[in-house]
Amino acid sequence: MKIALVQMPVSADKTKNLSVAAEAIAAAAGQGAELVMLPEMFCCPYDTGCFPLYGEPAGGPVWQALRRMAAENRVWLVGGSMPELEGGRVYNTSFVFSPAGEQIARHRKVHLFDIDVTGGQRFMESDTLSPGGGCTVFDTPFGRFGLCICFDIRFPALAREMTEAEARAILVPAAFNMTTGPLHWELLLRARAVDNQLFVAACAPARDTGAGYVSYGHSLVADPWGKVLADGGTEAGIFTVELDFGAVNAARRQIPVLPPQLREL
Amino acid sequence: MKIALVQMPVSADKTKNLSVAAEAIAAAAGQGAELVMLPEMFCCPYDTGCFPLYGEPAGGPVWQALRRMAAENRVWLVGGSMPELEGGRVYNTSFVFSPAGEQIARHRKVHLFDIDVTGGQRFMESDTLSPGGGCTVFDTPFGRFGLCICFDIRFPALAREMTEAEARAILVPAAFNMTTGPLHWELLLRARAVDNQLFVAACAPARDTGAGYVSYGHSLVADPWGKVLADGGTEAGIFTVELDFGAVNAARRQIPVLPPQLREL
Repeated sequence: MKIALVQMPVSADKTKNLSVAAEAIAAAAGQGAELVMLPEMFCCPYDTGCFPLYGEPAGGPVWQALRRMAAENRVWLVGGSMPELEGGRVYNTSFVFSPAGEQIARHRKVHLFDIDVTGGQRFMESDTLSPGGGCTVFDTPFGRFGLCICFDIRFPALAREMTEAEARAILVPAAFNMTTGPLHWELLLRARAVDNQLFVAACAPARDTGAGYVSYGHSLVADPWGKVLADGGTEAGIFTVELDFGAVNAARRQIPVLPPQLREL
Repeated sequence: MKIALVQMPVSADKTKNLSVAAEAIAAAAGQGAELVMLPEMFCCPYDTGCFPLYGEPAGGPVWQALRRMAAENRVWLVGGSMPELEGGRVYNTSFVFSPAGEQIARHRKVHLFDIDVTGGQRFMESDTLSPGGGCTVFDTPFGRFGLCICFDIRFPALAREMTEAEARAILVPAAFNMTTGPLHWELLLRARAVDNQLFVAACAPARDTGAGYVSYGHSLVADPWGKVLADGGTEAGIFTVELDFGAVNAARRQIPVLPPQLREL
């Protein structure tokens, strides 16, 4: 199957962000992509102060726009993430839509991004966000996918849970920064791929050095051997990659580190 | 504290291997090393057929030689690994000795190396070896260490168990090969370091392209940020590295992915 990562710029203008996403999704579908992924917080500046202001409930305008984009382009759409309002709380949420425009999955970021690196990045998502709970997988005719958001990928147990739930690829809307990106981005994505012998695809916003929070970029796809199939660099762009799910069972048979029942999906 | 990795050649001559190890340990101690590590199967060719033939019980000649080397040089000695005979079985075992020459830990490889990579390495340790059980840690005045052997490092759960047992470094006598080395060696060692925010030090035999099983070499030390502090290349050599255990708590405070009780060891 062909997937596309939309490494898009994110501005303070929500309407503009939506139209950039809509154009990119149409272009990706035109290139034959069957599943399209947007980056974390694709329609809101990555800023704890902005999350409550840009937040909307499920079913709101951004959610409606995403379901239309999926349906109009007949693609599986992983709608990056957005600030989701519910019951007075704000979540960092990824909605997934089928080509029929139905919501088929929702992942609320489990592990909030609270770091304070000496001489580097400080960020406290928990100032305004609430954590979600649990592991998220969804089914397509191409196979089962796992879904998590950015900082979630630092937790090996969550990736293993998706693996045990028979995911053959983990999708990660994300936005690492200029401290953690060079240190850990590729390492963590490739390690999750090798440890769990599945595909890992992560989509980040394009780098904007003028932003308050500078995204590292480098949207990336790693195969079950940890090989990098695509690295989006730092500029805006759409990156399509062909996934051959046969590679999952092949890797698991050849280096049998996973339980036998997971070697023949 | 200063540790030394002995990236030594391994021949078919057990006595010669022991004397190479003895010389290297004395040299490392002369360079101020307080803990010295040998590679996996440092005194036996890496060959399933050799393991039963070279095997000895704990307390046998190799074990006695190791305890003497530790005591004579006043170092903590991680004796790589050797084929250990017990009750009609053969284990891939690492013995650890204190500077007083006392055995303070024993790790039997938990996860046997049974792989069959198409067009690459095939090896079936389970043809002649039996697996050990469980996680191994040991204490020194410098802090607590975890210990595992080669293929064990592919299992994130085992590294996490050592982390939860409050290890601040994981030591890995190992011998990756020319298929899995380039693909996964550095990636796995750095990933275990970052995921568990501790030091990982792995010691491999020098590369011998004439051997039946060709070691990848590249003895390596990664810090709790995943930074490579030393890479031994492919030739024989002794590599000393200074470990500053303050880096463990610092990394854990700055990127708090581990439970709070592990952030202030």
